[in-house]
Amino acid sequence: MKLDFDCVIVGAGIAGMTAAIYLKRSNLNVLILDNDAPGGLLNKISSIENYPGFINISGPDLAYKIYEQVNNLGIEIRYGKVIDIKDHQVITDLETITTKKIILAIGRKARKLENTNNLKNVSYCAVCDANLYKNKTVALVGYSNSEMEEALYLADICKKVIIIGRGKEFKGEETLADRIRSKENVEIELDCVIKTLESDNDILTKIITNKGEFLVDGMFIAIGYEPNTEFLKDINKDKGYIIVDDKMKTNIDYIFACGDIIKKDIYQLTTAVGEATIAAINVKKEINN
Amino acid sequence: MKLDFDCVIVGAGIAGMTAAIYLKRSNLNVLILDNDAPGGLLNKISSIENYPGFINISGPDLAYKIYEQVNNLGIEIRYGKVIDIKDHQVITDLETITTKKIILAIGRKARKLENTNNLKNVSYCAVCDANLYKNKTVALVGYSNSEMEEALYLADICKKVIIIGRGKEFKGEETLADRIRSKENVEIELDCVIKTLESDNDILTKIITNKGEFLVDGMFIAIGYEPNTEFLKDINKDKGYIIVDDKMKTNIDYIFACGDIIKKDIYQLTTAVGEATIAAINVKKEINN
Repeated sequence: MKLDFDCVIVGAGIAGMTAAIYLKRSNLNVLILDNDAPGGLLNKISSIENYPGFINISGPDLAYKIYEQVNNLGIEIRYGKVIDIKDHQVITDLETITTKKIILAIGRKARKLENTNNLKNVSYCAVCDANLYKNKTVALVGYSNSEMEEALYLADICKKVIIIGRGKEFKGEETLADRIRSKENVEIELDCVIKTLESDNDILTKIITNKGEFLVDGMFIAIGYEPNTEFLKDINKDKGYIIVDDKMKTNIDYIFACGDIIKKDIYQLTTAVGEATIAAINVKKEINN
Repeated sequence: MKLDFDCVIVGAGIAGMTAAIYLKRSNLNVLILDNDAPGGLLNKISSIENYPGFINISGPDLAYKIYEQVNNLGIEIRYGKVIDIKDHQVITDLETITTKKIILAIGRKARKLENTNNLKNVSYCAVCDANLYKNKTVALVGYSNSEMEEALYLADICKKVIIIGRGKEFKGEETLADRIRSKENVEIELDCVIKTLESDNDILTKIITNKGEFLVDGMFIAIGYEPNTEFLKDINKDKGYIIVDDKMKTNIDYIFACGDIIKKDIYQLTTAVGEATIAAINVKKEINN
């Protein structure tokens, strides 16, 4: 039986696009599937300074540059939300595609804060929404590097940023932490737990915490990520993250995975491109044999 | 005792510079040591199409962009050839430097072809020397991707390129292979073994093989790489490649390694930056604890 593709890559983030570049250049028939714009989480990063080759580049700009590379090689990208994978078939909401191999590069989504679903002025993406809060006061709930990047972005646009952190320490990359501490319009509240969110007509107005009450015009949330892999029933996972071996192969013979969706210690753009390369080269080797 | 640096990175190639960017941004006192220009092997790659972010970039251009990043962060680079490493000391031909941690990112060198040392028109770097053979006939001895890139580069400059390959197949990335096959000035000789090199006043003139004799104006060699790690006496190696664990740590407590010098399956720019990030973040973690 002739299959539609040599390899279907699920996810058009930096990992998926990198794998596609390698596979296409090795002359395989490859498809990228995504239900969103190319770039994945890159599209939510305001400023990148640790990807080798660029002193400073925005996430969307880097995403676009890699998308241009993909495009330049004539790699097909199709829209589709993957619902199930079985027997060399990728089943989306629109079609069923057959393929020799699959690379899962679906990344992970931001974790949601409880009791905020109905609130209209709550955001999970500073790059996307900061502009709505120009000269206004916002809270930023979160921890770690992703929060720090959000904080810097917000501080440049909003009148005031109140960082609400549950931890006792301000954790993350120190150059970022220092830069945030030096911002006069940033207030850092640590050991701070939210008790109540007060709203008016689904607009958050006040955050009541153990450290006091804060009047805000909006709230940004950066409390980490979670992998969405429930639809992958037969694949070995740990807390939702896909378990792969050193060839980026899952427990299913024809399925590989790479990037932020795999279980690992370090989630960086550089590690994602490395893993994507390993996945692609091993897919190529297996198809050749 | 106060040590000179938190971390000394040996090697200013893409791996060493990437590790430095991560370490410096995490506020550590870091030094890069090299006995050559920044960029390492990048400086010998004519054209890169599989590094995410650039449709096509020359190796030296990418090296320079990353060097700018390093420079922009104020990272110190010193000239020095490392002779020995012991007891948290890096001993170069010029000085002895003390450091908490060391990352070895020394890459690897091209393998030499026998009986060519005295020949003046033999080169291991098309990017460097092709220009000397404009409108001339050259042989290219080699195999695999590195040879293919050299072949393409040479084909654009020289009158004729004769590829001499010992294998029975023309191996490597297929888009490259196709492109080479389509070049009218490239002759591909496979299953071809060199018997004698004839020269005149240390100038190679004729290559005698089992497949015939070839008159040439010069010869390029791309027969793989070898790691130069003899000076690292106490570090576990396999055929000269440094053995690391999944944190990029060697058997010596304070020494890490990454990039082309480690034992692994896939040697790509993307894998090098991934490994460098893992090494740097683990160095940072160990110093913090």
